[in-house]
Amino acid sequence: MILNSPLDMHLHLRDGEMLGQVGKLSAESFSGAVIMPNLVPPVDRLDMVHDYRGRIESAIGDHVFDPFMTLFFREYSMEELEAAKPHIIGIKLYPAGATTNSEAGVKAIDAAEPTIRRMEELGIPLLIHGETHGFVMDREKEFLEIYRHLATTFPKLRITMEHITTADAVKLLDEYENLFATVTLQHLLITLDDVAGGMLNPHLFCKPIAKRPEDRAALLDAALKAHPKLMFGSDSAPHPRHKKECCGCAAGVFTAPIALQVLADLFTKNGCAENLQAFISDNAQRIYGVTPPAKKVKLVQRPFDVPATYGDVDPVVPMYAGETIAWSIESIDA
Amino acid sequence: MILNSPLDMHLHLRDGEMLGQVGKLSAESFSGAVIMPNLVPPVDRLDMVHDYRGRIESAIGDHVFDPFMTLFFREYSMEELEAAKPHIIGIKLYPAGATTNSEAGVKAIDAAEPTIRRMEELGIPLLIHGETHGFVMDREKEFLEIYRHLATTFPKLRITMEHITTADAVKLLDEYENLFATVTLQHLLITLDDVAGGMLNPHLFCKPIAKRPEDRAALLDAALKAHPKLMFGSDSAPHPRHKKECCGCAAGVFTAPIALQVLADLFTKNGCAENLQAFISDNAQRIYGVTPPAKKVKLVQRPFDVPATYGDVDPVVPMYAGETIAWSIESIDA
Repeated sequence: MILNSPLDMHLHLRDGEMLGQVGKLSAESFSGAVIMPNLVPPVDRLDMVHDYRGRIESAIGDHVFDPFMTLFFREYSMEELEAAKPHIIGIKLYPAGATTNSEAGVKAIDAAEPTIRRMEELGIPLLIHGETHGFVMDREKEFLEIYRHLATTFPKLRITMEHITTADAVKLLDEYENLFATVTLQHLLITLDDVAGGMLNPHLFCKPIAKRPEDRAALLDAALKAHPKLMFGSDSAPHPRHKKECCGCAAGVFTAPIALQVLADLFTKNGCAENLQAFISDNAQRIYGVTPPAKKVKLVQRPFDVPATYGDVDPVVPMYAGETIAWSIESIDA
Repeated sequence: MILNSPLDMHLHLRDGEMLGQVGKLSAESFSGAVIMPNLVPPVDRLDMVHDYRGRIESAIGDHVFDPFMTLFFREYSMEELEAAKPHIIGIKLYPAGATTNSEAGVKAIDAAEPTIRRMEELGIPLLIHGETHGFVMDREKEFLEIYRHLATTFPKLRITMEHITTADAVKLLDEYENLFATVTLQHLLITLDDVAGGMLNPHLFCKPIAKRPEDRAALLDAALKAHPKLMFGSDSAPHPRHKKECCGCAAGVFTAPIALQVLADLFTKNGCAENLQAFISDNAQRIYGVTPPAKKVKLVQRPFDVPATYGDVDPVVPMYAGETIAWSIESIDA
């Protein structure tokens, strides 16, 4: 199987030593990725975008890889947005003020609307972490009201529902022309059962939390069909091992180095191998109007032993750590 | 507030060094407890009941405390049951064969029915861990079909639904005269949000897993009203700290040493202090027809600093470890 210019439309590369550890792992096999701006402090000025992009380019070395940069959402003036537009793929919004009550959630979004309107005018996509502060299994579903509100209020705004986890979110894709979505690898594979059904598994704990079997089924079905509005976005998030296994662990699953192999297996096993190209790159190119650098990743059905950790400085535990997966990367031409 | 002869109707005391560590913590403030038989190997012969009771009595020393012993469910003959009856309060069934499909679950129960019929004839209560092997949030709800089946097939059998966690189970209490239930401290207090809504909290991970806010509300309402068929059963389960905080942690919350204080706070805050006596002892005495030794536990509203761990050999982390709770035990007269 050959994948052309695979894209990861939702990626955390962090900064400093961790960026040094994980940057290459994505840049090796992916042609480009949407880089999340939630550093400390957040990337919310154009000069910070330039600087962060520079640090990413140093970290990935010679790899052919386009970091699609994002700004962290705040109030931006028209001038700021116009200046930023050529350098970013979109702006990422985490609606901290949204609450269980969806009315209140929309209200919290109100304050953001002048900036969102400017983004609509300029054609800058809005990427959203769509969860309320409600009960953990209901957070995404409750947030769908806010997606409806934004999709109707800003009909020309391109909105990406990031890392969707529910059947209801999949349905919403077909209701509004301007709604798109990313989905992670783990949400195609696991449910809450894998996190807390047997022993507690901190390495599969992520936000949004994995949901019910019928949710996973709907996500997998949409991915396997290469739903034209759905894109792969790993949300791959490296946390040092000690922050995952200690009491009270951080949320995030590290999938960057194994995502393509597992997707090849998943799509092939389900008889949908021909749809993976759209899911992993073509949909995203069309939706965002981007052309990533050419890269051919050849995958073969040959066992691959996933390392227990990646990185020397602050080892990161990947999904399937220490297990054998069925597909391997044979070669990468860039 | 004075509690007379408080009872813990579902308790894990383990064995060996752990029994030595935790036995006294229950025996100090409780007047008696239903002792779970799931040792390795399980307590499933009368001589094992006698031996385990002996080890418990050694471990608790001078404390006035009745260990109400149970047998682990297997096929038992009439002779075995008749011999055991004076020495046990009931038989604990964990239906390992029960599956998602409730039909199959009932079928798996079929094989157990000759023994269950003998228990009904002899008046030996059946205590059940009522979960199927389905999706983690549905396991108890799916099992309710099996409770219905047993309650109607064996109308004179006293059945205790152990550690119920759902609003549906609370409702079932009123549908069948011969159904009773225990509820833990943690299921009156937490939901899945507390386990996995923020950081992952292994110390609040237990089976059955904490459910939705409306489930907790129904359980708390029934407890505060001292529903006549509901009893306190802590399911307090000591796991050494290293088994709770490692990757892939074991299920169980250790509440024995703080349960009475937290219940006093909970019932008082909700204006139901007068109902705690029924919930903590009187209901159980009536339901099981037992008379525990006299013990007066005086509780006062005075801050208590919960230790980070209990025990020296293999420290156990209690619920509220390192936090301050509002009520303390002032004195115990036995």
